Amino acid sequence: MTSTLNSLLETFARIGATPDGGVCRLTGTSEDGQARALLAAEISGRQLALHVDPIGNMFGIASLAPSSKDAVVVGSHLDSQPTGGRFDGVYGVLAGLLAIEAVAARAAVEPGKARRNLALANWTNEEGARFQPSLTGSSVFAGTLALDDALALADGTGVTLGEALTAIGYRGTADLTLEPRRYVELHVEQGPLLEEEGVEIGVVTGCWAARKLSLVFHGEPSHTGPTRMARRRDALRAAARAIELHHCLIELSRTGAHASAARITVSPNSPNVTPSRVQVWFEFRHEDAAIARGLGDRFLAETRAAVASLGVDVEVAADEQRGTAALDPHGAALTASVARDLGFSLMEMKTIAGHDALALNKCVPASLIFVPSRDGLSHNPAEFTDETSLDKGLAVLTEVIWRLVTEE
Amino acid sequence: MTSTLNSLLETFARIGATPDGGVCRLTGTSEDGQARALLAAEISGRQLALHVDPIGNMFGIASLAPSSKDAVVVGSHLDSQPTGGRFDGVYGVLAGLLAIEAVAARAAVEPGKARRNLALANWTNEEGARFQPSLTGSSVFAGTLALDDALALADGTGVTLGEALTAIGYRGTADLTLEPRRYVELHVEQGPLLEEEGVEIGVVTGCWAARKLSLVFHGEPSHTGPTRMARRRDALRAAARAIELHHCLIELSRTGAHASAARITVSPNSPNVTPSRVQVWFEFRHEDAAIARGLGDRFLAETRAAVASLGVDVEVAADEQRGTAALDPHGAALTASVARDLGFSLMEMKTIAGHDALALNKCVPASLIFVPSRDGLSHNPAEFTDETSLDKGLAVLTEVIWRLVTEE
Repeated sequence: MTSTLNSLLETFARIGATPDGGVCRLTGTSEDGQARALLAAEISGRQLALHVDPIGNMFGIASLAPSSKDAVVVGSHLDSQPTGGRFDGVYGVLAGLLAIEAVAARAAVEPGKARRNLALANWTNEEGARFQPSLTGSSVFAGTLALDDALALADGTGVTLGEALTAIGYRGTADLTLEPRRYVELHVEQGPLLEEEGVEIGVVTGCWAARKLSLVFHGEPSHTGPTRMARRRDALRAAARAIELHHCLIELSRTGAHASAARITVSPNSPNVTPSRVQVWFEFRHEDAAIARGLGDRFLAETRAAVASLGVDVEVAADEQRGTAALDPHGAALTASVARDLGFSLMEMKTIAGHDALALNKCVPASLIFVPSRDGLSHNPAEFTDETSLDKGLAVLTEVIWRLVTEE
Repeated sequence: MTSTLNSLLETFARIGATPDGGVCRLTGTSEDGQARALLAAEISGRQLALHVDPIGNMFGIASLAPSSKDAVVVGSHLDSQPTGGRFDGVYGVLAGLLAIEAVAARAAVEPGKARRNLALANWTNEEGARFQPSLTGSSVFAGTLALDDALALADGTGVTLGEALTAIGYRGTADLTLEPRRYVELHVEQGPLLEEEGVEIGVVTGCWAARKLSLVFHGEPSHTGPTRMARRRDALRAAARAIELHHCLIELSRTGAHASAARITVSPNSPNVTPSRVQVWFEFRHEDAAIARGLGDRFLAETRAAVASLGVDVEVAADEQRGTAALDPHGAALTASVARDLGFSLMEMKTIAGHDALALNKCVPASLIFVPSRDGLSHNPAEFTDETSLDKGLAVLTEVIWRLVTEE
């Protein structure tokens, strides 16, 4: 099994490979199309039935209990960040594929045991790098994002997600007809806790809250040469002040919150014109939703005050508040029990990053399993998890879905 | 004459017109191509000989003294900023066209008076909005920028200036064969001084110094969620800190310097990845080159110190220092004398903005004449100069070039 998982990971890492050893496989690009085509071949090669839904989610179905419409769904995503690593997402899809193959083989030699079917899933645009918001395919599947709204999401050049999916031939026409009963996702941690604690398996019981505030700073264009300094209304200076203020506020709050300002657009972005419109995407993450919300409120008030003297107006373009959520307690208990049975150390933890499991959890009890990430590094070409750790995750996943498929 | 100038300005303002009343006519775009085609028609319609050189500079030649190779060149530029107004550049080209027409008509009725020829010029990529650096065509003409380097300049999407000029059909093959002896440019002030002083004509005697520092901040990509705050190396936070520091330093210096940070590029610019590479274009302008240089030095030292604690490295990608320069004293004296003869108030002043006249001044004595800009506003759709002021500028320009063409 080991060699198969590793060789699959190697093969997929070549699609969209970057010179620094990472992967750039943005949703709806030709690299995404190539990775999807390869996954489709792997699905069909394992006698799983391939299905693509209208938002491009791909499924590989093992009919273990043909008389039932129920399914346990296992998956993650093949898309990556521009500076993506070789494990984020793709590990969960490929381990899911091999786990389903193993469970199907076991079901064949233990006839009558399987009570439910199995479906592998590759969710569209988990990363939200090219199209915002993230978790697009899983949110449409869960019914929390309208299909038409998702298809209409546009990238920085105006191309819509619907157009991009059509271009690569992965805009399906029919929803999955199976009824999802449980969802399980295996993922690299992307944080340092498992490595620091020397623990092999992370049982994720829930997620941090997040507040995502997108602000637009409105100034006025003018010539950067002769215009008097006091006459300028510089939206980039205002944005810069807000970015530094945002980081200082997080540090001074001593709440342990995580925060970022990672995306910015500037207009007209010409060296000789005072910037007149700047948009910045700010995030606040905390285990306590009230703290994430409060930090956002305070930041907004302080930002307005800090930039008023610059003659710049602040508009809230988006304010998305994600609360904390508990993942499936039954799935977590089952994962812990499987890990113990297999002799692996484990710990319960929360996820700070968003995952498709969180989107799915709104319509089906969902579980999330972590393996360690070296140095907690992710969204980075140096992202790394060793072979042994990857295999342990796969072993846990396989046994977890066997039990979910066979239990009463 | 009034109605011709205004109607020409109106016609050109329609090419690349923006909904807010401004103009967006970037170098080498189809809008630039349309404006050039219209100018070519206006040149030919006035019996001037059209010539296009290898960097796309357009000339309209009046052979007033066929036995001489000497020429007085008059011009400006048709390209604009993305948030451009209706006067910046195009006023100087169209007034130049009409002034040459008037001088040619006068030369025809006063045979033997003209000792030199006249050439109208439309210089390629004065603004530097799509291709940096600015003043491209005039610098190639002056011999301070190599043609091949200029043609290889790439825009944000990788299209080169050479390709863009070929695409619109304005990449000529032969240099101008006339010998430029004087250059004269008429332009709107783009600053508030003439309006504040109630003066009609600005005689520009020289320019401020400028230092243009482009800095790259090198951080490290990581996940904006689970990555611990202390583990991040955020290049955008470093850039934001530098932008605010740069403005504070200018204010605290009390030198009267003008400064800007108006262009920024961020990589990977995804909401979920800590920015790993950010480039910012900073400018310092002052009447005293030593002060502009010193401010840049101090800014660089303080920036390195301020971002070191963020784990971000600073690279100087470009450091262009333009000294002060004196424009042609003879041209300035002549302009002042013409303004007085025509009964217009005048003042001597320096230009803070860059102009083609400054590039030309390196190979031929150059003169620059200003008319007032309402509220000093430019690079803004609301840029405005009233008809009467525009006509006064044209009257001065016409008489100045008559005297330059006829003087001993």
